[in-house]
Amino acid sequence: MDDRIIKEILKFRDERGWKQFHNPKDLAISISLEVAELLENFQWSSSEEAVAKRMSSIQEELADVLIYSILFAETVGLNLDEIIMDKLSANNKKYPVEKAFGKKEKYTEL
Amino acid sequence: MDDRIIKEILKFRDERGWKQFHNPKDLAISISLEVAELLENFQWSSSEEAVAKRMSSIQEELADVLIYSILFAETVGLNLDEIIMDKLSANNKKYPVEKAFGKKEKYTEL
Amino acid sequence: MDDRIIKEILKFRDERGWKQFHNPKDLAISISLEVAELLENFQWSSSEEAVAKRMSSIQEELADVLIYSILFAETVGLNLDEIIMDKLSANNKKYPVEKAFGKKEKYTEL
Amino acid sequence: MDDRIIKEILKFRDERGWKQFHNPKDLAISISLEVAELLENFQWSSSEEAVAKRMSSIQEELADVLIYSILFAETVGLNLDEIIMDKLSANNKKYPVEKAFGKKEKYTEL
Repeated sequence: MDDRIIKEILKFRDERGWKQFHNPKDLAISISLEVAELLENFQWSSSEEAVAKRMSSIQEELADVLIYSILFAETVGLNLDEIIMDKLSANNKKYPVEKAFGKKEKYTEL
Repeated sequence: MDDRIIKEILKFRDERGWKQFHNPKDLAISISLEVAELLENFQWSSSEEAVAKRMSSIQEELADVLIYSILFAETVGLNLDEIIMDKLSANNKKYPVEKAFGKKEKYTEL
Repeated sequence: MDDRIIKEILKFRDERGWKQFHNPKDLAISISLEVAELLENFQWSSSEEAVAKRMSSIQEELADVLIYSILFAETVGLNLDEIIMDKLSANNKKYPVEKAFGKKEKYTEL
Repeated sequence: MDDRIIKEILKFRDERGWKQFHNPKDLAISISLEVAELLENFQWSSSEEAVAKRMSSIQEELADVLIYSILFAETVGLNLDEIIMDKLSANNKKYPVEKAFGKKEKYTEL
């Protein structure tokens, strides 16, 4: 993740004195609320209809998911690039190409 | 977001032939499921207890939230850095420093 | 809601000494986690495929949503029948038949 | 669940011609969105503060969770009382009193 972006997000938080509210539990709740707002764009709609009609809301809510995820990572001391690379490596073992190719099942059902 | 990370995520998806399943609606659902797994670490626990006891699960589930968010952005053609900067700029108007300082209320209640 | 059912749920909780953990915030989180498990049955699937293949999981997770909703209501002192009837009456005003008929839009967009 | 309540909910739906939109996947999404609105009342707040300040919103959002859960059950043909009793019986085996008493751990960790 671009350091400049992370700095802008932390600056936004700190200018408002919001660090005091940002405990990990409430930040996890916050990511969950923003995902629901993203998902609301798809309620009663196909992907195509949602993308055609509500792209600006989709874009804003996805950004909120990311902003809170970055705030969460900063608060608990995680580096986003590192945890993504670690998880991809774990997923490589859970979903070996020869077993998972073209299948949508969970690793427990492969 | 680091291009190298995005490439690794897309490579993981494409080696498994999973692009066919990745419509925006199901990707939004997927982000939502991963956030729930992140939040589960805080069920019946304070932030402190969760962080002390379940950091490796927290790290993995946060990574999954980010991986699916990146896959969602790629699928609908959004650039993460851009949408985050746009949203921060919108939030600057919604939450002016002089009004929002030290307050946890939503902008509709400030 | 049938009093017998509510009594069974509270008996289950109290036999295990779990009332001490059941604060409203964690119960709200718990409902949210169970809904995610319900929704997981529909990830990468149409409604038809999910209902045909995963009905027993759908049934169990929906039951968990209801059990935690009942525990939440009991903990904060709400009567389910009453709050449902109140909400239907509020929804009647938000969604008048002549305006809402055959439309899937939110009341703010009608 | 009281038959009279279920009838009122179905009447509300059918007067508006909404049955056509009510597929199980979108209803599961809808329950998930309503739970997020319930949970929002607890964001940045303790249980006590949320209950003291936002009880009317808590009541409304919990009612929406229940209304959509009932609509989901009707759509897929499930009887709420039955599936709750079945789930309690399954939970009795997963969480035997002697093992689960006073513990908040998941059955997989008991």
